[in-house]
Amino acid sequence: MTKTREIHLVRRPSGMPVLADFSVADANAPETGEGEIKVQTLIMSVDPYMRPRLNADQPLNAPLLGGGIGRVIESRNPKFAEGQLVRQGVGFREVHVSDGKGMSILNRDPDLPLSVYMHALGGTGITAYGGLLDIGKLKDGEQVVVSTAGGAVGSVVAQIAKIKGCHVVGLTGTDDKVAWLREEAGLDAVINYKTQNLAEALQAAAPKGIDVYFENVGGAQLDAALPLMNVHGRVPVCGMISTYNGGGEGVRNLFNLIYKRVRMEGFVATDFAHLNGAFMSDMTGWLKSGQIKYQETVLDGFERAPEGLIGLFEGRNHGKMLIHVAD
Amino acid sequence: MTKTREIHLVRRPSGMPVLADFSVADANAPETGEGEIKVQTLIMSVDPYMRPRLNADQPLNAPLLGGGIGRVIESRNPKFAEGQLVRQGVGFREVHVSDGKGMSILNRDPDLPLSVYMHALGGTGITAYGGLLDIGKLKDGEQVVVSTAGGAVGSVVAQIAKIKGCHVVGLTGTDDKVAWLREEAGLDAVINYKTQNLAEALQAAAPKGIDVYFENVGGAQLDAALPLMNVHGRVPVCGMISTYNGGGEGVRNLFNLIYKRVRMEGFVATDFAHLNGAFMSDMTGWLKSGQIKYQETVLDGFERAPEGLIGLFEGRNHGKMLIHVAD
Repeated sequence: MTKTREIHLVRRPSGMPVLADFSVADANAPETGEGEIKVQTLIMSVDPYMRPRLNADQPLNAPLLGGGIGRVIESRNPKFAEGQLVRQGVGFREVHVSDGKGMSILNRDPDLPLSVYMHALGGTGITAYGGLLDIGKLKDGEQVVVSTAGGAVGSVVAQIAKIKGCHVVGLTGTDDKVAWLREEAGLDAVINYKTQNLAEALQAAAPKGIDVYFENVGGAQLDAALPLMNVHGRVPVCGMISTYNGGGEGVRNLFNLIYKRVRMEGFVATDFAHLNGAFMSDMTGWLKSGQIKYQETVLDGFERAPEGLIGLFEGRNHGKMLIHVAD
Repeated sequence: MTKTREIHLVRRPSGMPVLADFSVADANAPETGEGEIKVQTLIMSVDPYMRPRLNADQPLNAPLLGGGIGRVIESRNPKFAEGQLVRQGVGFREVHVSDGKGMSILNRDPDLPLSVYMHALGGTGITAYGGLLDIGKLKDGEQVVVSTAGGAVGSVVAQIAKIKGCHVVGLTGTDDKVAWLREEAGLDAVINYKTQNLAEALQAAAPKGIDVYFENVGGAQLDAALPLMNVHGRVPVCGMISTYNGGGEGVRNLFNLIYKRVRMEGFVATDFAHLNGAFMSDMTGWLKSGQIKYQETVLDGFERAPEGLIGLFEGRNHGKMLIHVAD
């Protein structure tokens, strides 16, 4: 047996999660049986989609559902070799033993850091790619507004839209994210929704209306975008982070869907498996050419996963929030 | 010249329209010039879509924008013969002279009353048909919920869904509409949203969830339907009558779009011109076979159009609200 640790949910959050809703539990990983592998987690991802699950299908006193990358440290399964990198969705466990089901071998491009496989080349990247191109049906040169433009999904959405020749407006909540999006990511306009009058600023920044509003927030930001939608506009609905912790105003401007024939459509990353080949190829190229830039906020230490998750909802991340566990 | 009357908007309504927002204005129809026709209005339609226009593109002190059926009483245009019936969208005018542009000859089935061409075989009928089948992509046997099921659009939506073998739940606001929908239109369940707990009643009436929620109301009814949507459910958005006169709560349950991959999509009747042939053929057959039943509330007298429009928002209509002007 190997001593390991797990992040557990011990209490369902009411509103904003707090540290006491979670625990770091000591555990033992069993011996590696025939057909099994033992994996050391290297890096884990905390994401907004995890919040609603805390009050739904996340079991109490069991590893927090979430994804990461690990290294095979022992293999008795012919499909895996020791030292290989694997993508895993086994919950937040420092070391674990598995039959390998649901795990996939990660072939890392040596010119790219491992961490990008947790965002631009991982779940948030394909969420952005599929949400914008497949659900949003983006056409070259359209008018695009991206909510949570400073986040892991939004920043990739905004930069793909720029690559496609679009006029791109980003919404974000801190001035340093505004600066990064304008100066590094090259957006046409960026609005700080906390300090600016959102409706007025958005109208000024999107004088030709909005063909695609990439939705990650809901509430007041959706209400500001809806009246500006162009005929046959699309609202791919990736998230509604403003509603996850309760509170927030209801949405009042949905009637704008009617005359503008706007389509709002929800999606999840697993819908885009059919796009994976094109995505990996396009995104690897864009990252290596510098057309897609990114920021990361990395917390060092397995036990800091709850802090990272809570930090997401407080906007304490610059780009993708990651938990570094081991090298 | 011929003496005539027009219904004018004289003041933009604040909230619910009142009679003083309108006037019945005397006017003169000019002589019928070369290439022109003179038309006597027979019947006019008042519809929910007219409300938002009163605070938008409806001019003040000019005929209220709206549709109807008229009879050609004088023709100097070779495309029209005296005595022919025409569909017209010329605003609420008792007699008018026109070059015939935008008017179309109505070939009435002699076995059907003229009034059905103002609803089941008119704008509300094709709105229901296109909204449910083209935007809603209804499949045989699905689970369907229809808001304003007692109205001109909703009652046709609900009955088309029954013809397609679906489980159909209607939402309406009076007990006599409940009775008509259950007993005459043959819905599987009908909920009076004013007297029942909507969320509980809907859950009980739709035990297999909702594949298509036909949206005419917004607000609390949309919030009750969203958590019950099935994966890849559709919400064709025909109207949001709860929001047209201001007030009403915002919508809080939109996050349900995400995990269920629900598509909400707005539309207007003019999007369905390509369906017109199939629609007229299907609907004429359904009406003559008795598969589509209808109710009408007919106010007698041109000058009663404002009363009819206001009555719509007070739920005083049973089925389609019409204004009878002349035989």
